Amino acid sequence: MKNTFGSSVTVTIFGESHGDSIGAVIDGLAPGIKVDDQYIAHMLTLRRPAGKISTPRREQDNFRIISGVVNGLTTGTPITLIIPNENVKSGDYSQMKTVARPSHADYSANCKYHGFQDSRGGGHFSGRITAALVAAGAICKFALEQKGIFIGTHVKRCAGIADRDFGDLIQDITCLNEKPFAVLDDEAGLQMQEAILAAANQGDSVGGVLETAITGMPEGVGEPWFDTVESLLSHMMLSIPAVKGIEFGAGFDLADMRGSEANDPLRMEDGKVVATTNNNGGVNGGITNGMPIIFRTVVKPTPTIFKQQKTIDFSTMTDAVLDPKGRHDPAIVHRARIVQDAAAAIVLCDMLALRFGTDWLNSPERR
Amino acid sequence: MKNTFGSSVTVTIFGESHGDSIGAVIDGLAPGIKVDDQYIAHMLTLRRPAGKISTPRREQDNFRIISGVVNGLTTGTPITLIIPNENVKSGDYSQMKTVARPSHADYSANCKYHGFQDSRGGGHFSGRITAALVAAGAICKFALEQKGIFIGTHVKRCAGIADRDFGDLIQDITCLNEKPFAVLDDEAGLQMQEAILAAANQGDSVGGVLETAITGMPEGVGEPWFDTVESLLSHMMLSIPAVKGIEFGAGFDLADMRGSEANDPLRMEDGKVVATTNNNGGVNGGITNGMPIIFRTVVKPTPTIFKQQKTIDFSTMTDAVLDPKGRHDPAIVHRARIVQDAAAAIVLCDMLALRFGTDWLNSPERR
Amino acid sequence: MKNTFGSSVTVTIFGESHGDSIGAVIDGLAPGIKVDDQYIAHMLTLRRPAGKISTPRREQDNFRIISGVVNGLTTGTPITLIIPNENVKSGDYSQMKTVARPSHADYSANCKYHGFQDSRGGGHFSGRITAALVAAGAICKFALEQKGIFIGTHVKRCAGIADRDFGDLIQDITCLNEKPFAVLDDEAGLQMQEAILAAANQGDSVGGVLETAITGMPEGVGEPWFDTVESLLSHMMLSIPAVKGIEFGAGFDLADMRGSEANDPLRMEDGKVVATTNNNGGVNGGITNGMPIIFRTVVKPTPTIFKQQKTIDFSTMTDAVLDPKGRHDPAIVHRARIVQDAAAAIVLCDMLALRFGTDWLNSPERR
Amino acid sequence: MKNTFGSSVTVTIFGESHGDSIGAVIDGLAPGIKVDDQYIAHMLTLRRPAGKISTPRREQDNFRIISGVVNGLTTGTPITLIIPNENVKSGDYSQMKTVARPSHADYSANCKYHGFQDSRGGGHFSGRITAALVAAGAICKFALEQKGIFIGTHVKRCAGIADRDFGDLIQDITCLNEKPFAVLDDEAGLQMQEAILAAANQGDSVGGVLETAITGMPEGVGEPWFDTVESLLSHMMLSIPAVKGIEFGAGFDLADMRGSEANDPLRMEDGKVVATTNNNGGVNGGITNGMPIIFRTVVKPTPTIFKQQKTIDFSTMTDAVLDPKGRHDPAIVHRARIVQDAAAAIVLCDMLALRFGTDWLNSPERR
Repeated sequence: MKNTFGSSVTVTIFGESHGDSIGAVIDGLAPGIKVDDQYIAHMLTLRRPAGKISTPRREQDNFRIISGVVNGLTTGTPITLIIPNENVKSGDYSQMKTVARPSHADYSANCKYHGFQDSRGGGHFSGRITAALVAAGAICKFALEQKGIFIGTHVKRCAGIADRDFGDLIQDITCLNEKPFAVLDDEAGLQMQEAILAAANQGDSVGGVLETAITGMPEGVGEPWFDTVESLLSHMMLSIPAVKGIEFGAGFDLADMRGSEANDPLRMEDGKVVATTNNNGGVNGGITNGMPIIFRTVVKPTPTIFKQQKTIDFSTMTDAVLDPKGRHDPAIVHRARIVQDAAAAIVLCDMLALRFGTDWLNSPERR
Repeated sequence: MKNTFGSSVTVTIFGESHGDSIGAVIDGLAPGIKVDDQYIAHMLTLRRPAGKISTPRREQDNFRIISGVVNGLTTGTPITLIIPNENVKSGDYSQMKTVARPSHADYSANCKYHGFQDSRGGGHFSGRITAALVAAGAICKFALEQKGIFIGTHVKRCAGIADRDFGDLIQDITCLNEKPFAVLDDEAGLQMQEAILAAANQGDSVGGVLETAITGMPEGVGEPWFDTVESLLSHMMLSIPAVKGIEFGAGFDLADMRGSEANDPLRMEDGKVVATTNNNGGVNGGITNGMPIIFRTVVKPTPTIFKQQKTIDFSTMTDAVLDPKGRHDPAIVHRARIVQDAAAAIVLCDMLALRFGTDWLNSPERR
Repeated sequence: MKNTFGSSVTVTIFGESHGDSIGAVIDGLAPGIKVDDQYIAHMLTLRRPAGKISTPRREQDNFRIISGVVNGLTTGTPITLIIPNENVKSGDYSQMKTVARPSHADYSANCKYHGFQDSRGGGHFSGRITAALVAAGAICKFALEQKGIFIGTHVKRCAGIADRDFGDLIQDITCLNEKPFAVLDDEAGLQMQEAILAAANQGDSVGGVLETAITGMPEGVGEPWFDTVESLLSHMMLSIPAVKGIEFGAGFDLADMRGSEANDPLRMEDGKVVATTNNNGGVNGGITNGMPIIFRTVVKPTPTIFKQQKTIDFSTMTDAVLDPKGRHDPAIVHRARIVQDAAAAIVLCDMLALRFGTDWLNSPERR
Repeated sequence: MKNTFGSSVTVTIFGESHGDSIGAVIDGLAPGIKVDDQYIAHMLTLRRPAGKISTPRREQDNFRIISGVVNGLTTGTPITLIIPNENVKSGDYSQMKTVARPSHADYSANCKYHGFQDSRGGGHFSGRITAALVAAGAICKFALEQKGIFIGTHVKRCAGIADRDFGDLIQDITCLNEKPFAVLDDEAGLQMQEAILAAANQGDSVGGVLETAITGMPEGVGEPWFDTVESLLSHMMLSIPAVKGIEFGAGFDLADMRGSEANDPLRMEDGKVVATTNNNGGVNGGITNGMPIIFRTVVKPTPTIFKQQKTIDFSTMTDAVLDPKGRHDPAIVHRARIVQDAAAAIVLCDMLALRFGTDWLNSPERR
């Protein structure tokens, strides 16, 4: 399906960094869901570059909803939103860049698109496209909140500095969803930002780890094969630029644990089943068990750096040296976190609509 | 799509641990591909429990191909293979187990299937089902090898013991595909097996990390959104029971690297583009770059252990204690590795057929 | 998706006329649905050739359910049923038939499968495969009946003889579902059978029109684009061998009607909305309106006839003459009707599960 | 998938009659295909209402391509085009129309969308949306022509008047693609237009039959199950508003033919296989046989008429009478023909890309 994701609720994204507009079509959302422009704008603001640690490209992300919403409510038919690209220097149009930036998509895209790809500013591969995903996901995330399902992501690790672990999830999520730099420990956050600046000053970049928590998901959602909760979330997250790995619950730490440590004991609490630990991250056998869904992704360091790098020119198929000028993000992990929230929201809406029917997201019943 | 995976080449799996048969339908494979029964049997043997470190359930996995193959060649229409379940004690039929085994699918499955799930031996959630996936994947893996694409997986880590890193990939893959216990360093392998036995003797279990290498993939395969190579492989791998995470290339280590370390410089070698390092695991922007695809998954410790565990009874919704008897696998990571090979082969066949057309897998051209 | 149909409830079919077995996998059906072997057997009997007007190939269609059903109830995981091919002469194996039977798939299949297709008895293109579809659809049809949704098909026209129109739908459907030769007017049925025999005696074959009625479908099911009720039913029906057209409600007669005749006036009846006429066949804007769904398909005359026909040999690419011996069905329209019922049931189950959630088909609520 | 169609090449449509814009996203087209704005504009002109026989709503259909095309060539990533709605009276916004127009989607849509649907001008159900499909299909149709595949549709029948049959297909198609009122016999066309006007003058509307011919399709494309060529084309065509039936080749006339008449004899001609007749419409066993693909659809009379009609008010669930004022299309069959061309082009591009790979549509090779 390429640029479309989902079975019952689907999202299609489009656009290029220096094209006319980027955007998304969200189809299959229940009719009557409130679409809150402020909420969308807020999430776009959290994604937008800001301060010294981000690219100086600054756009207002003035999204426009051009279908599927009447009087602020979803109609049930496709919602299309577009975000015009501003701040684009059209002088770049003519020259096709053929010196591949290492660890960017330049070379692999050329293998696939044979030189016809839009190479201006990364084209369809640009992180810019994630703004469309954020806007689409914002609509989904808001809808989920009306059903008591909350999503929050923090920068768990950046440039070698760790944030504290999740504590009270509802409180932490609420707090994160307001923060421009999403950490639970602000002291750690300041250190991260200093480390990002330090790397930037050396023309370098840093990576990090994002951790997402989802509360309120009904149990019994997901499939044993192949559409496990982990599979669908991974499918989505691993398509976010720069994300190179994902782990659920205790994740890779499970490798060195014994079953007796790793297993999550169950017990009854207020008539509900709860797990004493959550090493499985809320999913057993691919299906939600009612515990919070917890996952972490790794975001690689921004490949654009300001150091000489060995590479090739794919027009001449010869060795080349790249010596980039200008200014880019020395880190994107702190911006990617809101992309991860939005992306997760899309996946959850799809799973829930498939499980409980297309009206469920706007039904009064809670889990 | 639930129990079906893929767009152009699809695999549907079915069956329960103690049902009549398990099996798979593979659709969309090019006509005229050789189906090598020995090759399939060999892969099933590598998956089968063996020795002291595995469950004593021993079955021959006498698969039967009941459609789609004539004279040992694919017809181009659906290939169905079934593996009858032998060694099944039918006395278990009557009692529905309602005491949830911690970190198994028992409770979450009950939330989804309302008590109608087949609970005998784990039912559709049993690792047994992976035999069908291995058989299906074996057909795909053999086909890929005719096109110069090779896949191999080793136990990178188990019970705290690490295998050596990949060296010469073709040589290592060839070697691994013959080994019952897939390590590159046999000494480490022996230590792992001892550690597994030690855990077993304490009624406990261990987990591990699997690392897969894929060589020979053409460049320019995969999509920028949402069907990146990483997304499709993750989707598949995270549906394998007990797999809780995946990482590509340098994976989570990228979090602490700087761009200048993480970026993979390119250079020309014999007229081809090669990367000096492979921190991106063969994929940029979701698209293959011609380098080997490298990924690792984490396999959690087998949840079945022989220790008392706190849990709940979901028929009565009360606290309960589980005190299991019998014998199960104290580790599955060494068996899961062939599942990972098979699963990867399915994903690659699908991506290649979508990219180059349905005949490509049986065309004479090499990349 | 090729041999798989559906989004939420999916059916995958496999097998060849002279292979080991044919069969189907049904995935996504709600757990706890009764699977009635007698009901399946009954539908298979109605499909099976019988009497002088059918091929003498007679098989018991001893289907076996090998997964997904425990104690006669669906588990919610994939249901696999296989029907072994009996009565197959294995002597045919060696020779590939390369003289194309006109209006069969021989030549087009060879273009697609390059000679690797199973050509014995039509292989995967044989009407035999429809037995698997009937068995799968029988499970769905039975489930729908528990929800008050009924499907029936009659031979509206055959060899120039017309059956009477539908009258009381529930009564007509009930009656048709028991009849070996499904007509509403038995006199017309006898004439049809005589006409079929007459054609057979001349080595020729006849076609016909099937009309299907569906009652009890909830309103508000289907999509405006592209998955309209008509689209999904057409997609399925036009994949049944020999079906070359479909029309809903007044169908092609609408071409010569004026809007004032064609429009279906609405009125209230017992608190429900009903249409005075049903020229739209129960669907407006792609969505059910609560009226019965009515559609007709055309079934072409069986292409196998016992007359000399001009054709080509695709191994030598030369002109050839086909002079077939043996005995085949001089008509299939009276057998195809149960295929149409089964196929419709699959489509409805999928649409309903997508609309109302995966549990709906086994929920106590009626529309 | 709802508002998205296709597997390898996909089209997503969106928009409402009186919303901001309508549009489409086309994904999966090969890179480097020329996008000819004149060609798109020409097809939009053919769809646009004109003369006395159409609605007076006249818009320029000033489409804008906002992604996926650079320098007039496809990039290979999603192409998004939007067509702003002009000529929209915003005064209509407030009142939700609850008196259902008979044979419109008003009532069924309300059942599905619970009153949240956009009811202004038919909303997402309006024929207006077909402009987006035409623009998307125009890109596909142009691409097919570069590969030697041509599509043309004529009004085979309208208001009881018949056009002549197809003769020389290439010549007829070329001619039709320029004609505002697409008939092969202009005399018949004049009579049709007079009959449409006559109906209009009586406040009534008429329907018709469209016949489409496709030449140049490679043989061996399509699937035996379920994605036959007929299935995919039917799926698409039956989602076009007002289309209620489809037939291939001799279609419903096959019902009264004998096999000896209906079978298409084959012969060699200039080294190629040709069929002497084409009763199967270019498809056998669901797969193209190299003959022209021929199909016909029935377009019901426009449901909007200017006569009193009995209906219901679904807000009060009471009987009501509709007495519409204003002016609408007394026929749409002559406009729908270009929609059918466009829709067919989308289906063919998808089938071809799936069969021969994603680059094929822009490869130099001809069939």
